[in-house]
Amino acid sequence: MCEANAYLMKDGKEELLMANVDILRPEGNVVYLMDIFGEQRWVEAAIKEMNLVRHRIVLEKA
Amino acid sequence: MCEANAYLMKDGKEELLMANVDILRPEGNVVYLMDIFGEQRWVEAAIKEMNLVRHRIVLEKA
Repeated sequence: MCEANAYLMKDGKEELLMANVDILRPEGNVVYLMDIFGEQRWVEAAIKEMNLVRHRIVLEKA
Repeated sequence: MCEANAYLMKDGKEELLMANVDILRPEGNVVYLMDIFGEQRWVEAAIKEMNLVRHRIVLEKA
């Protein structure tokens, strides 16, 4: 499976926000995330960088 | 490997922009993409949706 872990940059540190992310969709100043189990989150953030081979998504506060 | 294919929505259709995308980074109204071979592209677009399990990234014109 090719899901990734989503981290939120906070005070210069990365905090794990959601593991096994499948779907990710920016919606204004919110990012919608859904993991492979169907759990959903909406986070006030923007996408900073994604590294798919390393299974990493980094978000930062919008 | 968990790279994805990046598509650009154009006139309601999806056009393959880059295959085997590893890194993706929004930079203002541009999205920077790098594939697993190190090839780079900067595209005037925004991320619309990503579906990692299906290896799909959809961008749309900014």
